[in-house]
Amino acid sequence: MKNIVVKAAALLTLTAPVAAQEAPEGAPSPNAIVDAARPGDWVTIPAEDLLVMELAPDAVGNPRTLVIQLMPAPFSQGWVENIRTLARAEWYDGITINRVQDNYVVQWGDPNHDNPEATGEAKPLPKGLNVMGEHEYSTTKLARIDWQSLPHVLVRANESLRPRKRSHPTIPDAPPRIDIRLDDYVSEPGFVFGWPTTRQSGLQGWAPVHCYGMVGVGRSYSPDTGSGTELYTVIGHAPRHLDRNIALVGRVIAGIEHMSSLPRGSGALGFYTEEEAGKRTPIVSVRVASDLAEDQQPSFQYLSTESETFAKYAEARANRRDPFFIVPAGGADICNIPVPVRRVAATPK
Amino acid sequence: MKNIVVKAAALLTLTAPVAAQEAPEGAPSPNAIVDAARPGDWVTIPAEDLLVMELAPDAVGNPRTLVIQLMPAPFSQGWVENIRTLARAEWYDGITINRVQDNYVVQWGDPNHDNPEATGEAKPLPKGLNVMGEHEYSTTKLARIDWQSLPHVLVRANESLRPRKRSHPTIPDAPPRIDIRLDDYVSEPGFVFGWPTTRQSGLQGWAPVHCYGMVGVGRSYSPDTGSGTELYTVIGHAPRHLDRNIALVGRVIAGIEHMSSLPRGSGALGFYTEEEAGKRTPIVSVRVASDLAEDQQPSFQYLSTESETFAKYAEARANRRDPFFIVPAGGADICNIPVPVRRVAATPK
Repeated sequence: MKNIVVKAAALLTLTAPVAAQEAPEGAPSPNAIVDAARPGDWVTIPAEDLLVMELAPDAVGNPRTLVIQLMPAPFSQGWVENIRTLARAEWYDGITINRVQDNYVVQWGDPNHDNPEATGEAKPLPKGLNVMGEHEYSTTKLARIDWQSLPHVLVRANESLRPRKRSHPTIPDAPPRIDIRLDDYVSEPGFVFGWPTTRQSGLQGWAPVHCYGMVGVGRSYSPDTGSGTELYTVIGHAPRHLDRNIALVGRVIAGIEHMSSLPRGSGALGFYTEEEAGKRTPIVSVRVASDLAEDQQPSFQYLSTESETFAKYAEARANRRDPFFIVPAGGADICNIPVPVRRVAATPK
Repeated sequence: MKNIVVKAAALLTLTAPVAAQEAPEGAPSPNAIVDAARPGDWVTIPAEDLLVMELAPDAVGNPRTLVIQLMPAPFSQGWVENIRTLARAEWYDGITINRVQDNYVVQWGDPNHDNPEATGEAKPLPKGLNVMGEHEYSTTKLARIDWQSLPHVLVRANESLRPRKRSHPTIPDAPPRIDIRLDDYVSEPGFVFGWPTTRQSGLQGWAPVHCYGMVGVGRSYSPDTGSGTELYTVIGHAPRHLDRNIALVGRVIAGIEHMSSLPRGSGALGFYTEEEAGKRTPIVSVRVASDLAEDQQPSFQYLSTESETFAKYAEARANRRDPFFIVPAGGADICNIPVPVRRVAATPK
């Protein structure tokens, strides 16, 4: 009998050799629901929204390629445009990964600038970069969207399903002196156009959410909002306190393990110290996929978050009934429902 | 000007050299609140609850030591006893890390058993291991605790602070066909004796929570509950769907970067394939700290979750007002309030 944490139904033939226990009957896993999606449930990501990032090969010469999906309108477009400008100026070529903080972020940029101990000259910037305001950390443009025009399956929090006050007569309650809200502080999370977002209480705007793998724009103190020269990706538990405080511009959709498995920096905030300069992974190139030769362009699709398949997948993530599980959670936080993304053969144009 | 994601107030002298922007005034950071804790706010962890785990040195000969804190009563004690029994039988010595799945878990055990492709003989087990029931995944014993006898500051969810239904007149609501709860599915999360826990709706029992770094017991299908021979730790976003479905037995309190930065396995569920057998990191030894010579025993303390300092720290994590932040979140999920743990010089006995 094999002891493993989770067995996905689709993988049972791989994980249950020889003496293994047969899988009991159960509902389809979230992955099985995704595997059964119709072709029309998948949305092709425009090549203009894909960045191909080549790190230096690893210690034994294996290539390390990442693909980042940039956020579509109406989110963060000023920074997204800057990132395309910087990529097209080949500004990112030759910069390094300067910070790897466990359970938090990996950050890359000009090591002579994005580095507490830097003493060198900063790399000159291309012309034409946008300077963005803090109000662009969230967007009000979705407020004008007529939700009725979207497919009627839309995954989002439902007020009526929030847990109500319950009495626990056997556990007397101590009055807390300092009250805080846990778990349920987001007033209305939901998925919009393939992205985890939230509509915050008291705001009409929607903000993207700092889930695992999301890519954001490093900045200094307010009112600085960052340009896109320093970027980071989340490699730990979702740091939701950064939502609406930093611009989110995309997510890593392939190769994040090349970031998350890097050695941690021992300096403040996980920066590599000068003594650890040799650990800074060089970034060989960053290209907008649409600028590559056609046969070099990767192609990816995401599962439409407006599709019925996504709604079923999300429901199954929130209530696991596949064979391994005994007690369904009865819910999920938005970052535990990652939007399925798949690589596909490039379609001929 | 340096662009960094987060600057902790205590680290400003490290992160703001030369051309750096001065930090504006602001409230103390969560870390600064912890730094100001009184000595009496810290609780020394018994050496009997500490496991010292020595991995084989890394590729350049650096030692890799982890320390795991085992859960105290009334949580998961049958498995915790098994783990001490296995450590004292030196059963863990010579096993390997067999699974590294990105944004999920690192798992270690007998490679001839905890491995989908295994064909060898399983390692014999010591006598006297407990066989646990699924009802022990949560505990009802806390229901008998008189909360009034605890210090009156107790960090937990407060129903009155849950967001109320708000109208968003400019955004017409589409009726979702499949409703799920997001973010707020845990009825009453809170911290008990230094651990993140939750009291689930409809249950009188408290269950520990799968936050980053928590250690759990691998198992096969129900009714198997695992013995403690295969263990895993969380290296990604909190997989809360595992709560109440697997036994949690502790957390990594030092050296988790030696797990989280390991190369990911390319097999099913992140297991290393037979071709990747060379990537399985050997575990040299696992010892209960109290069995070590006194001068070899590490000593750790956690910030009492019943202390006023912890309540202030949690409130500050939920509402960041230190200089970097513009918009406090207004709340935090329980896994974004890690319980502070510090290494201290061993106290003479």
